[in-house]
Amino acid sequence: FFWRKVLIIYAHQEPKSLNGSLKNLAVEELSKQGCNVTTSDLYAMQFEPRATRNDIIGCLHNSEHFDYGVESWEAYKRRCLASDLIEEQRKVQVADLVIFQFPLYWFSMPAIMKGWIDRVLVQGFAHNFPQCYDDGLLKNKLALLSFTTGGDEEMFSKGGVSGDIRYLLWPIQHGIMHFCGFKVLAPQICFAPKYVTEEKRKEMLTSWAQRLKTIWEEKPINCTPELYFK
Amino acid sequence: FFWRKVLIIYAHQEPKSLNGSLKNLAVEELSKQGCNVTTSDLYAMQFEPRATRNDIIGCLHNSEHFDYGVESWEAYKRRCLASDLIEEQRKVQVADLVIFQFPLYWFSMPAIMKGWIDRVLVQGFAHNFPQCYDDGLLKNKLALLSFTTGGDEEMFSKGGVSGDIRYLLWPIQHGIMHFCGFKVLAPQICFAPKYVTEEKRKEMLTSWAQRLKTIWEEKPINCTPELYFK
Ligand SMILES: Cc1cc2nc3c(=O)[nH]c(=O)nc-3n(C[C@H](O)[C@H](O)[C@H](O)COP(=O)(O)OP(=O)(O)OC[C@H]3O[C@@H](n4cnc5c(N)ncnc54)[C@H](O)[C@@H]3O)c2cc1C
Ligand SMILES: Cc1cc2nc3c(=O)[nH]c(=O)nc-3n(C[C@H](O)[C@H](O)[C@H](O)COP(=O)(O)OP(=O)(O)OC[C@H]3O[C@@H](n4cnc5c(N)ncnc54)[C@H](O)[C@@H]3O)c2cc1C
Ligand SMILES: [Zn+2]
Ligand SMILES: [Zn+2]
Repeated sequence: FFWRKVLIIYAHQEPKSLNGSLKNLAVEELSKQGCNVTTSDLYAMQFEPRATRNDIIGCLHNSEHFDYGVESWEAYKRRCLASDLIEEQRKVQVADLVIFQFPLYWFSMPAIMKGWIDRVLVQGFAHNFPQCYDDGLLKNKLALLSFTTGGDEEMFSKGGVSGDIRYLLWPIQHGIMHFCGFKVLAPQICFAPKYVTEEKRKEMLTSWAQRLKTIWEEKPINCTPELYFK
Repeated sequence: FFWRKVLIIYAHQEPKSLNGSLKNLAVEELSKQGCNVTTSDLYAMQFEPRATRNDIIGCLHNSEHFDYGVESWEAYKRRCLASDLIEEQRKVQVADLVIFQFPLYWFSMPAIMKGWIDRVLVQGFAHNFPQCYDDGLLKNKLALLSFTTGGDEEMFSKGGVSGDIRYLLWPIQHGIMHFCGFKVLAPQICFAPKYVTEEKRKEMLTSWAQRLKTIWEEKPINCTPELYFK
């Protein structure tokens, strides 16, 4: 797997967190395989999450009525997007696999990572109607969610208070990744790391390392409503 | 309904947008009823979406390992949260109804609004295990999502490419609102306003105004998995 390129989008404030450890372990394991690994450490970069006029350098397409979707699309074509976005798009462009590493915040990703999605995956670059879903512009790439939770597996089961964990994967895996054409690999979920034993936590790290050894042989999930809601 | 208090959390960059019009109309209509309406115009406020150490004034509970959930909870109890958060919490505290007005970004809310959720609804203020879901700390309040989409109703139907719109409501209405104890009113959805006729757009505005006239008589939805996935 020499030269395969991996991009890790990482959103945790604390290097010593379990998210930090999972990220470091992925960098290590994949580098050992000979992959080329790049990390976007969003908090360390103080990544801007707000989609605003500042993302367009110079004149607007329509300065009378600001439409972020239209303006970012036009700016992409004219190469007038803000430099932090261009930089992230370059990283995505060359990646074979994008891993999103984050703690679950409110049944979703932290706002700083949602901002990365909102601002980086612009029309023209990641999708371009009707080039979406199976025809999305990032269709030769893989994506994988690796996240941790506060709630335990029982709470995130079908009869649990928080419902089946798959319910909350839908908007992210289908609405974002599949929409852009990514083939989606099964999520890596560490349930309630704060509340388990040190031994169990070590197991969580080991099983992630193990999985990464054969990650390039995995088949993507079949990202349809049946998978999530049946 | 004199003196009923409404808080509108509004996330659009352009005052002339349909979201801007829907927000203005709600302010007007509810004020006319005698309600007291407050708006948090997130882009105009340049609201900070990132959950960082800056949200805690002064010393940390544990400066060796930064845990945002623990630190914001402790800071809430010690009254050491950043002033922009305290201000938003005050607005929520007095509100009878909170309306979230936004354009759908990636099957969810824009990052700036997700940041409001991540940073404002801290433990101790909005929930405090086991005080969550029906026992959440905001349990005497109502919440309502009012949003616009790019995709049309057919795309967001059960057999459509984007799946039933209710699938993406789950993480927000159950995972955020219900979790905090809010009673959830039915969402107000304007499908594909860009692609419909001017007449249809006027109708969207009129039906929102109409609905608001009797909003205080509405029964909340029954926010369980059955409602979303059956
Ligand atoms: C705003 C907000 C919203 C949230 N919303 C939700 C929600 O909707 N649903 C939900 O379930 N949860 C929610 N949570 C909880 C959150 O998901 C968890 O707190 C988080 O996932 C835990 O991961 P962490 O990396 O921060 O854990 P940490 O507390 O950093 O790590 C857990 C433990 O692992 C240890 N550790 C780190 N590295 C190693 C290592 N190499 N070997 C062994 N041990 C190690 C740490 O020291 C620590 O003891 C929310 C939290 C916040 C702040
Ligand atoms: C980053 C990003 C992600 C997105 N993700 C998704 C997604 O996952 N799914 C999806 O479906 N869509 C998505 N979209 C599309 C987005 O949801 C729509 O563009 C948005 O909801 C349209 O609402 P608006 O207020 O911006 O519309 P506008 O374009 O501002 O308004 C629509 C029309 O209404 C007119 N109007 C305004 N006020 C009035 C009035 N008083 N009377 C009559 N007409 C009026 C305007 O002039 C305009 O012509 C995304 C867009 C972006 C930028
Ligand atoms: Zn899918
Ligand atoms: Zn619910």
